[in-house]
Amino acid sequence: MPSHFQPVALEHASRLINHGPTVLITSIGADGQRNVMAAAWSMPVEFTPPRIAIVIDKKTFTRELVIASGVFGICIPGAGLVDLTHAVGSESGSEVGDKFERHRIDARPGPVLGVPVIEAGCSAWLECRLISEPHAQDTYDTCFCEVVAAAADARIFSNGRWHVGPDNAALHTIHHLGGGNFARGGDVVKAR
Amino acid sequence: MPSHFQPVALEHASRLINHGPTVLITSIGADGQRNVMAAAWSMPVEFTPPRIAIVIDKKTFTRELVIASGVFGICIPGAGLVDLTHAVGSESGSEVGDKFERHRIDARPGPVLGVPVIEAGCSAWLECRLISEPHAQDTYDTCFCEVVAAAADARIFSNGRWHVGPDNAALHTIHHLGGGNFARGGDVVKAR
Repeated sequence: MPSHFQPVALEHASRLINHGPTVLITSIGADGQRNVMAAAWSMPVEFTPPRIAIVIDKKTFTRELVIASGVFGICIPGAGLVDLTHAVGSESGSEVGDKFERHRIDARPGPVLGVPVIEAGCSAWLECRLISEPHAQDTYDTCFCEVVAAAADARIFSNGRWHVGPDNAALHTIHHLGGGNFARGGDVVKAR
Repeated sequence: MPSHFQPVALEHASRLINHGPTVLITSIGADGQRNVMAAAWSMPVEFTPPRIAIVIDKKTFTRELVIASGVFGICIPGAGLVDLTHAVGSESGSEVGDKFERHRIDARPGPVLGVPVIEAGCSAWLECRLISEPHAQDTYDTCFCEVVAAAADARIFSNGRWHVGPDNAALHTIHHLGGGNFARGGDVVKAR
Protein backbone atom coordinates (compact mmCIF):
# COMPACT_ATOMS: atom_id res chain seq x y z
CA MET A 1 0.00 0.00 0.00
CA PRO A 2 1.54 3.36 -0.96
CA SER A 3 2.12 5.81 1.86
CA HIS A 4 0.35 9.13 1.66
CA PHE A 5 2.58 10.60 4.36
CA GLN A 6 4.34 13.89 3.68
CA PRO A 7 6.65 15.86 5.97
CA VAL A 8 5.03 18.51 8.17
CA ALA A 9 6.97 21.76 8.66
CA LEU A 10 8.03 22.01 12.29
CA GLU A 11 6.24 25.34 12.74
CA HIS A 12 3.00 23.50 11.97
CA ALA A 13 3.66 20.53 14.26
CA SER A 14 1.53 21.89 17.12
CA ARG A 15 -1.51 21.83 14.83
CA LEU A 16 -1.38 18.05 14.81
CA ILE A 17 -2.44 17.83 18.47
CA ASN A 18 -3.97 21.29 18.97
CA HIS A 19 -7.47 19.80 19.13
CA GLY A 20 -6.72 17.23 21.83
CA PRO A 21 -6.72 13.86 20.09
CA THR A 22 -5.86 10.67 21.94
CA VAL A 23 -2.42 9.56 20.74
CA LEU A 24 -0.13 6.56 20.74
CA ILE A 25 3.28 6.91 22.38
CA THR A 26 5.99 4.71 20.90
CA SER A 27 9.29 4.00 22.60
CA ILE A 28 12.46 1.97 22.25
CA GLY A 29 14.90 0.26 24.57
CA ALA A 30 18.67 -0.16 24.42
CA ASP A 31 18.43 -3.87 23.65
CA GLY A 32 15.90 -3.72 20.85
CA GLN A 33 12.76 -3.54 22.94
CA ARG A 34 9.94 -1.35 21.71
CA ASN A 35 6.61 -0.38 23.12
CA VAL A 36 3.42 1.49 22.30
CA MET A 37 0.73 2.81 24.64
CA ALA A 38 -2.29 5.08 24.31
CA ALA A 39 -2.29 8.51 25.96
CA ALA A 40 -5.16 10.95 26.24
CA TRP A 41 -3.26 13.61 28.14
CA SER A 42 -1.05 15.73 25.87
CA MET A 43 -0.92 19.30 24.64
CA PRO A 44 1.36 21.67 22.73
CA VAL A 45 3.14 24.22 24.92
CA GLU A 46 5.06 26.19 22.27
CA PHE A 47 4.84 26.78 18.53
CA THR A 48 8.52 27.48 17.78
CA PRO A 49 10.49 25.53 18.74
CA PRO A 50 7.65 23.02 18.68
CA ARG A 51 7.27 21.69 22.19
CA ILE A 52 4.72 19.38 23.74
CA ALA A 53 3.81 18.27 27.25
CA ILE A 54 2.53 14.73 27.65
CA VAL A 55 1.62 12.73 30.73
CA ILE A 56 3.37 9.36 30.99
CA ASP A 57 2.61 7.63 34.27
CA LYS A 58 5.72 6.64 36.21
CA LYS A 59 4.36 3.11 36.61
CA THR A 60 4.34 2.44 32.85
CA PHE A 61 6.92 0.54 30.84
CA THR A 62 6.88 3.42 28.34
CA ARG A 63 8.04 5.85 31.03
CA GLU A 64 10.97 3.57 31.87
CA LEU A 65 12.00 3.36 28.21
CA VAL A 66 11.53 7.09 27.56
CA ILE A 67 13.60 8.15 30.55
CA ALA A 68 16.38 5.76 29.54
CA SER A 69 16.44 6.65 25.83
CA GLY A 70 15.41 10.31 25.95
CA VAL A 71 13.26 9.91 22.85
CA PHE A 72 9.76 8.79 21.88
CA GLY A 73 7.22 8.96 19.10
CA ILE A 74 3.68 10.32 19.07
CA CYS A 75 1.36 8.76 16.49
CA ILE A 76 -2.19 9.99 15.96
CA PRO A 77 -4.58 7.08 15.41
CA GLY A 78 -7.51 7.48 13.06
CA ALA A 79 -11.02 6.36 13.93
CA GLY A 80 -10.31 3.07 12.19
CA LEU A 81 -7.83 2.26 14.96
CA VAL A 82 -10.19 2.81 17.87
CA ASP A 83 -10.04 -0.83 19.00
CA LEU A 84 -6.26 -0.96 18.73
CA THR A 85 -5.91 2.30 20.62
CA HIS A 86 -8.05 1.05 23.46
CA ALA A 87 -6.20 -2.28 23.50
CA VAL A 88 -2.67 -0.85 23.73
CA GLY A 89 -3.92 1.52 26.42
CA SER A 90 -5.21 -1.35 28.53
CA GLU A 91 -2.16 -3.63 28.74
CA SER A 92 1.48 -3.22 29.74
CA GLY A 93 4.39 -4.02 27.47
CA SER A 94 6.27 -5.32 30.50
CA GLU A 95 3.64 -8.06 30.81
CA VAL A 96 2.49 -8.85 27.28
CA GLY A 97 5.77 -8.39 25.42
CA ASP A 98 6.09 -6.65 22.07
CA LYS A 99 2.72 -5.05 21.39
CA PHE A 100 3.67 -4.34 17.78
CA GLU A 101 3.95 -8.08 17.11
CA ARG A 102 1.00 -8.92 19.32
CA HIS A 103 -1.30 -6.59 17.39
CA ARG A 104 0.50 -6.84 14.04
CA ILE A 105 1.20 -3.12 13.98
CA ASP A 106 3.19 -2.01 10.97
CA ALA A 107 5.84 0.45 12.17
CA ARG A 108 9.19 1.68 10.92
CA PRO A 109 11.98 3.70 12.54
CA GLY A 110 11.46 7.44 12.24
CA PRO A 111 13.96 9.35 10.11
CA VAL A 112 15.63 11.45 12.83
CA LEU A 113 15.40 9.58 16.14
CA GLY A 114 14.61 6.05 15.02
CA VAL A 115 11.54 5.73 17.25
CA PRO A 116 8.74 3.59 15.79
CA VAL A 117 6.36 5.56 13.61
CA ILE A 118 3.01 4.11 12.55
CA GLU A 119 1.47 5.24 9.29
CA ALA A 120 -1.19 2.65 8.45
CA GLY A 121 -4.40 3.92 10.02
CA CYS A 122 -2.77 7.00 11.55
CA SER A 123 -3.21 10.58 10.40
CA ALA A 124 0.21 11.79 11.57
CA TRP A 125 3.30 11.10 13.64
CA LEU A 126 5.89 13.18 15.47
CA GLU A 127 9.40 12.27 16.64
CA CYS A 128 10.12 13.82 20.03
CA ARG A 129 13.20 14.37 22.15
CA LEU A 130 12.56 14.46 25.89
CA ILE A 131 13.56 17.67 27.68
CA SER A 132 14.86 16.66 31.09
CA GLU A 133 12.57 18.21 33.70
CA PRO A 134 12.85 15.92 36.73
CA HIS A 135 10.51 17.96 38.94
CA ALA A 136 7.61 18.03 36.44
CA GLN A 137 8.21 14.36 35.63
CA ASP A 138 8.26 13.30 39.28
CA THR A 139 5.48 15.52 40.58
CA TYR A 140 3.01 15.60 37.69
CA ASP A 141 4.14 12.73 35.43
CA THR A 142 4.44 15.49 32.84
CA CYS A 143 7.13 15.02 30.23
CA PHE A 144 8.12 18.04 28.15
CA CYS A 145 9.64 17.34 24.76
CA GLU A 146 10.71 18.99 21.55
CA VAL A 147 9.39 17.80 18.20
CA VAL A 148 12.27 17.19 15.78
CA ALA A 149 10.36 15.66 12.86
CA ALA A 150 6.73 15.25 11.86
CA ALA A 151 4.69 13.90 8.98
CA ALA A 152 1.03 13.54 8.14
CA ASP A 153 -1.22 11.70 5.75
CA ALA A 154 -1.85 14.28 3.04
CA ARG A 155 -5.38 12.98 2.60
CA ILE A 156 -6.30 14.64 5.91
CA PHE A 157 -3.51 17.13 6.76
CA SER A 158 -1.48 19.20 4.32
CA ASN A 159 -0.02 22.70 4.09
CA GLY A 160 -0.33 23.05 7.84
CA ARG A 161 -4.08 22.42 7.93
CA TRP A 162 -6.52 19.65 8.69
CA HIS A 163 -8.90 18.74 5.88
CA VAL A 164 -11.66 16.77 7.59
CA GLY A 165 -14.51 15.39 5.53
CA PRO A 166 -16.64 12.36 4.77
CA ASP A 167 -14.00 11.02 2.37
CA ASN A 168 -11.39 10.46 5.10
CA ALA A 169 -13.56 9.17 7.96
CA ALA A 170 -11.18 6.35 8.95
CA LEU A 171 -8.50 8.96 9.65
CA HIS A 172 -10.62 11.29 11.76
CA THR A 173 -9.01 11.85 15.15
CA ILE A 174 -10.46 10.20 18.25
CA HIS A 175 -10.79 11.82 21.66
CA HIS A 176 -11.20 9.57 24.67
CA LEU A 177 -14.31 10.34 26.73
CA GLY A 178 -13.59 7.50 29.16
CA GLY A 179 -14.54 3.85 29.38
CA GLY A 180 -13.56 3.05 25.80
CA ASN A 181 -15.87 5.71 24.34
CA PHE A 182 -14.26 8.15 21.95
CA ALA A 183 -15.61 11.32 20.39
CA ARG A 184 -14.70 11.38 16.71
CA GLY A 185 -13.56 14.73 15.34
CA GLY A 186 -15.33 14.37 12.04
CA ASP A 187 -17.73 17.28 12.03
CA VAL A 188 -16.14 20.70 11.51
CA VAL A 189 -17.75 23.99 12.49
CA LYS A 190 -16.25 27.32 11.51
CA ALA A 191 -16.35 30.41 13.67
CA ARG A 192 -17.38 33.68 12.07
CA MET B 1 -33.92 29.83 32.14
CA PRO B 2 -33.44 27.03 34.70
CA SER B 3 -29.90 25.74 35.13
CA HIS B 4 -29.30 22.09 34.39
CA PHE B 5 -25.93 22.20 36.16
CA GLN B 6 -25.20 19.63 38.83
CA PRO B 7 -22.01 19.21 40.88
CA VAL B 8 -19.37 16.84 39.50
CA ALA B 9 -17.51 14.68 42.03
CA LEU B 10 -13.87 15.75 42.14
CA GLU B 11 -12.66 12.26 41.23
CA HIS B 12 -14.53 12.66 37.93
CA ALA B 13 -13.28 16.16 37.15
CA SER B 14 -10.53 14.98 34.79
CA ARG B 15 -13.20 13.43 32.55
CA LEU B 16 -14.44 16.90 31.68
CA ILE B 17 -11.30 17.70 29.68
CA ASN B 18 -9.95 14.19 29.04
CA HIS B 19 -10.90 14.43 25.35
CA GLY B 20 -9.12 17.70 24.65
CA PRO B 21 -11.84 20.31 24.22
CA THR B 22 -11.02 23.95 23.70
CA VAL B 23 -11.91 25.79 26.92
CA LEU B 24 -12.52 29.27 28.25
CA ILE B 25 -10.30 30.51 31.08
CA THR B 26 -11.95 33.00 33.43
CA SER B 27 -10.04 35.19 35.85
CA ILE B 28 -10.51 38.00 38.35
CA GLY B 29 -8.49 40.97 39.56
CA ALA B 30 -8.14 42.52 42.99
CA ASP B 31 -10.12 45.61 42.00
CA GLY B 32 -13.11 43.91 40.42
CA GLN B 33 -11.65 43.26 37.00
CA ARG B 34 -12.54 40.02 35.29
CA ASN B 35 -11.47 38.42 32.07
CA VAL B 36 -12.16 35.47 29.81
CA MET B 37 -10.00 33.97 27.06
CA ALA B 38 -10.07 30.84 24.93
CA ALA B 39 -7.40 28.17 25.39
CA ALA B 40 -6.82 25.08 23.29
CA TRP B 41 -3.86 23.78 25.27
CA SER B 42 -4.88 22.02 28.46
CA MET B 43 -4.83 18.49 29.87
CA PRO B 44 -5.43 16.60 33.10
CA VAL B 45 -2.24 15.46 34.84
CA GLU B 46 -3.72 13.60 37.85
CA PHE B 47 -7.04 12.02 38.78
CA THR B 48 -6.87 12.41 42.58
CA PRO B 49 -6.30 15.06 43.64
CA PRO B 50 -7.67 16.39 40.35
CA ARG B 51 -4.91 18.38 38.72
CA ILE B 52 -4.68 20.04 35.35
CA ALA B 53 -1.94 21.67 33.29
CA ILE B 54 -2.96 24.57 31.06
CA VAL B 55 -0.92 26.89 28.88
CA ILE B 56 -1.50 30.60 29.55
CA ASP B 57 0.84 32.77 27.51
CA LYS B 58 2.84 35.19 29.63
CA LYS B 59 1.81 38.05 27.34
CA THR B 60 -1.89 37.67 28.14
CA PHE B 61 -3.95 39.72 30.58
CA THR B 62 -5.32 36.43 31.94
CA ARG B 63 -1.83 35.33 32.96
CA GLU B 64 -1.30 38.58 34.85
CA LEU B 65 -4.60 38.15 36.72
CA VAL B 66 -4.04 34.45 37.44
CA ILE B 67 -0.56 34.95 38.86
CA ALA B 68 -1.83 37.78 41.07
CA SER B 69 -4.96 36.01 42.32
CA GLY B 70 -3.81 32.38 42.31
CA VAL B 71 -7.20 31.22 41.02
CA PHE B 72 -9.05 30.82 37.75
CA GLY B 73 -12.00 29.10 36.16
CA ILE B 74 -12.19 26.69 33.24
CA CYS B 75 -15.49 26.65 31.35
CA ILE B 76 -16.18 24.23 28.51
CA PRO B 77 -18.06 25.92 25.68
CA GLY B 78 -20.61 23.98 23.68
CA ALA B 79 -20.77 24.08 19.89
CA GLY B 80 -23.35 26.83 20.14
CA LEU B 81 -20.63 29.12 21.51
CA VAL B 82 -18.13 28.59 18.70
CA ASP B 83 -18.27 32.23 17.57
CA LEU B 84 -17.93 33.54 21.12
CA THR B 85 -15.02 31.17 21.82
CA HIS B 86 -13.16 32.36 18.75
CA ALA B 87 -13.93 36.00 19.58
CA VAL B 88 -12.63 35.92 23.16
CA GLY B 89 -9.56 34.07 21.93
CA SER B 90 -8.78 36.81 19.42
CA GLU B 91 -8.83 39.93 21.61
CA SER B 92 -7.14 41.03 24.84
CA GLY B 93 -9.02 42.12 27.92
CA SER B 94 -6.33 44.72 28.53
CA GLU B 95 -7.39 46.40 25.28
CA VAL B 96 -11.12 45.81 24.92
CA GLY B 97 -12.12 45.98 28.59
CA ASP B 98 -14.61 43.64 30.23
CA LYS B 99 -15.29 40.91 27.70
CA PHE B 100 -18.25 39.63 29.71
CA GLU B 101 -20.05 42.93 29.18
CA ARG B 102 -18.78 43.31 25.64
CA HIS B 103 -20.20 39.93 24.62
CA ARG B 104 -23.08 39.89 27.11
CA ILE B 105 -21.78 36.70 28.74
CA ASP B 106 -23.88 35.57 31.68
CA ALA B 107 -21.51 34.53 34.47
CA ARG B 108 -21.69 34.21 38.22
CA PRO B 109 -19.05 33.73 40.91
CA GLY B 110 -18.14 30.09 41.49
CA PRO B 111 -19.08 28.62 44.87
CA VAL B 112 -15.60 27.98 46.26
CA LEU B 113 -13.18 30.47 44.70
CA GLY B 114 -15.51 33.11 43.31
CA VAL B 115 -14.07 32.97 39.80
CA PRO B 116 -16.59 33.60 37.02
CA VAL B 117 -18.37 30.45 35.90
CA ILE B 118 -20.41 30.38 32.71
CA GLU B 119 -23.33 27.98 32.42
CA ALA B 120 -25.42 29.25 29.50
CA GLY B 121 -24.08 27.44 26.44
CA CYS B 122 -21.36 25.59 28.35
CA SER B 123 -21.32 21.90 29.19
CA ALA B 124 -19.26 22.23 32.36
CA TRP B 125 -17.03 24.43 34.51
CA LEU B 126 -14.20 23.89 36.97
CA GLU B 127 -12.82 26.17 39.67
CA CYS B 128 -9.04 25.89 39.87
CA ARG B 129 -6.37 26.95 42.32
CA LEU B 130 -2.97 27.65 40.77
CA ILE B 131 -0.08 25.55 42.06
CA SER B 132 2.97 27.79 42.10
CA GLU B 133 5.51 26.32 39.70
CA PRO B 134 7.62 29.28 38.55
CA HIS B 135 9.95 27.25 36.33
CA ALA B 136 7.15 25.57 34.32
CA GLN B 137 5.29 28.88 34.13
CA ASP B 138 8.33 30.82 32.95
CA THR B 139 9.80 28.23 30.60
CA TYR B 140 6.72 26.57 29.09
CA ASP B 141 3.87 28.97 29.98
CA THR B 142 2.43 25.88 31.67
CA CYS B 143 0.31 26.51 34.73
CA PHE B 144 -0.45 23.54 36.98
CA CYS B 145 -3.57 23.79 39.10
CA GLU B 146 -5.82 21.81 41.38
CA VAL B 147 -9.55 21.57 40.73
CA VAL B 148 -11.50 22.43 43.87
CA ALA B 149 -15.05 22.42 42.47
CA ALA B 150 -16.74 21.33 39.25
CA ALA B 151 -20.21 21.12 37.78
CA ALA B 152 -21.72 20.02 34.50
CA ASP B 153 -24.94 20.32 32.55
CA ALA B 154 -26.71 17.06 33.37
CA ARG B 155 -28.14 16.97 29.86
CA ILE B 156 -24.67 16.01 28.56
CA PHE B 157 -22.58 14.91 31.59
CA SER B 158 -23.82 13.06 34.66
CA ASN B 159 -22.64 10.30 36.99
CA GLY B 160 -19.08 10.87 35.81
CA ARG B 161 -19.84 10.22 32.13
CA TRP B 162 -20.47 12.14 28.94
CA HIS B 163 -23.79 11.44 27.23
CA VAL B 164 -23.32 12.75 23.71
CA GLY B 165 -26.16 12.52 21.24
CA PRO B 166 -28.24 14.36 18.67
CA ASP B 167 -30.47 15.82 21.39
CA ASN B 168 -27.66 17.91 22.95
CA ALA B 169 -25.80 19.11 19.85
CA ALA B 170 -25.42 22.71 21.05
CA LEU B 171 -23.46 21.42 24.05
CA HIS B 172 -21.07 19.16 22.13
CA THR B 173 -17.48 20.07 22.89
CA ILE B 174 -15.39 21.89 20.29
CA HIS B 175 -11.74 21.22 19.50
CA HIS B 176 -9.76 23.93 17.73
CA LEU B 177 -8.12 22.73 14.52
CA GLY B 178 -6.68 26.18 13.79
CA GLY B 179 -7.87 29.22 11.88
CA GLY B 180 -11.27 29.32 13.54
CA ASN B 181 -12.14 25.79 12.48
CA PHE B 182 -13.27 23.47 15.25
CA ALA B 183 -13.90 19.74 15.23
CA ARG B 184 -17.14 19.03 17.07
CA GLY B 185 -17.11 16.02 19.36
CA GLY B 186 -20.60 14.88 18.50
CA ASP B 187 -20.04 11.45 17.04
CA VAL B 188 -19.12 8.75 19.55
CA VAL B 189 -17.40 5.49 18.66
CA LYS B 190 -16.97 2.70 21.18
CA ALA B 191 -13.95 0.43 21.32
CA ARG B 192 -14.53 -3.30 21.65
